[in-house]
Amino acid sequence: MKIGILGTGMVGVALGSKLVQVGHDVKMGSRTPNNEKAVTWAKENGAHASYGTFADAAAFGEVVFNCTAGTASLAAVTAAGAANLKGKVLVDVANPLDFSKGMPPTLTVCNTDSLAEQIQRAFPSVNVVKALNTMNCAVMVNPTLVPGDHDVFLCGNDRQAKEKVTEIVKSFGWRSIIDLGDITAARGMEMLLPIWLRLMGHYQSPNFNFKIVR
Amino acid sequence: MKIGILGTGMVGVALGSKLVQVGHDVKMGSRTPNNEKAVTWAKENGAHASYGTFADAAAFGEVVFNCTAGTASLAAVTAAGAANLKGKVLVDVANPLDFSKGMPPTLTVCNTDSLAEQIQRAFPSVNVVKALNTMNCAVMVNPTLVPGDHDVFLCGNDRQAKEKVTEIVKSFGWRSIIDLGDITAARGMEMLLPIWLRLMGHYQSPNFNFKIVR
Repeated sequence: MKIGILGTGMVGVALGSKLVQVGHDVKMGSRTPNNEKAVTWAKENGAHASYGTFADAAAFGEVVFNCTAGTASLAAVTAAGAANLKGKVLVDVANPLDFSKGMPPTLTVCNTDSLAEQIQRAFPSVNVVKALNTMNCAVMVNPTLVPGDHDVFLCGNDRQAKEKVTEIVKSFGWRSIIDLGDITAARGMEMLLPIWLRLMGHYQSPNFNFKIVR
Repeated sequence: MKIGILGTGMVGVALGSKLVQVGHDVKMGSRTPNNEKAVTWAKENGAHASYGTFADAAAFGEVVFNCTAGTASLAAVTAAGAANLKGKVLVDVANPLDFSKGMPPTLTVCNTDSLAEQIQRAFPSVNVVKALNTMNCAVMVNPTLVPGDHDVFLCGNDRQAKEKVTEIVKSFGWRSIIDLGDITAARGMEMLLPIWLRLMGHYQSPNFNFKIVR
């Protein structure tokens, strides 16, 4: 599959590298055509890795991952372009964390709305799927980093888009994938971040994950 | 131990009954001195169960559980009385759910504040411990209702108060109790509710719980 990545941070690098490893062609996009981190990433990941602008990555991918900082996501998807994303799957991995008021960060949107819903409303012709935002990026692409069974959540309005994301997530090694329903479930998924951040402080490690026991 | 319960709903009844079962003297308080549900509960729970006003329950208990609806909690604790609660442990089990705008409920406070912090600020001489709010009340008092290992979270500013609550929670059968730190961790605990509500819809059952795997 051809996959676009928006963002050159840790999350974009982790997902982009994993997607190349499992057999996809991946283009990493950023604000500029030759972002240094994107160039380095492409060089390290071989012939199936390339780079370009947000718009280049969006035009390239049939599935596009939003791996930008939550506060930059709407601008990034806007730069990617509605026309380039039309009818495609946008996997929103971002969290709307605001670090500007110190630690711990707060959420820029929550409770009655979410970042994923903001993106879906702004780009109605794109099939937004919220997924993978409730864990560290190392765990995202390597669930065995946390022993035993644990869960990845996803939600979105389009069934086929969620099936496509489910297949990708399974190829990373995930076995327990919980579909929480339509895109409004992203509120709950993004609102997991405050306790996730507390737990990271408590364990002094990001290598943990949520499991729903029943 | 002498324990007060604020609230006569499902949570108050479940906790009050369990606390009597494990050997405590429990007084259930409500707005009126002889609330019908409190009278019935006391009758069904024998000599160690009694009832009265919020103030009666607060004066009676060395530990007091806030089991009122989140939207009524500040008024209930105010009626219980700062003098009656001074130096005592107030276990805040409530969630600030607002059902007035339809389903799903939203939170009346979140992100930069929490119900537990509101109570702690309003009653600085009380040792507020947030605990047990992240699960159904049947699971609270009977963790084996959900098979295997799963977690109960707590937080608060006073170490001894948290130790006292830990002992009580252990007497219910809980083995994994995660202390998230000071009372501001209540934000994350209360913000678990939106995904909890989604999961309840997904599983069509409240008999599940969170486990942190690492």
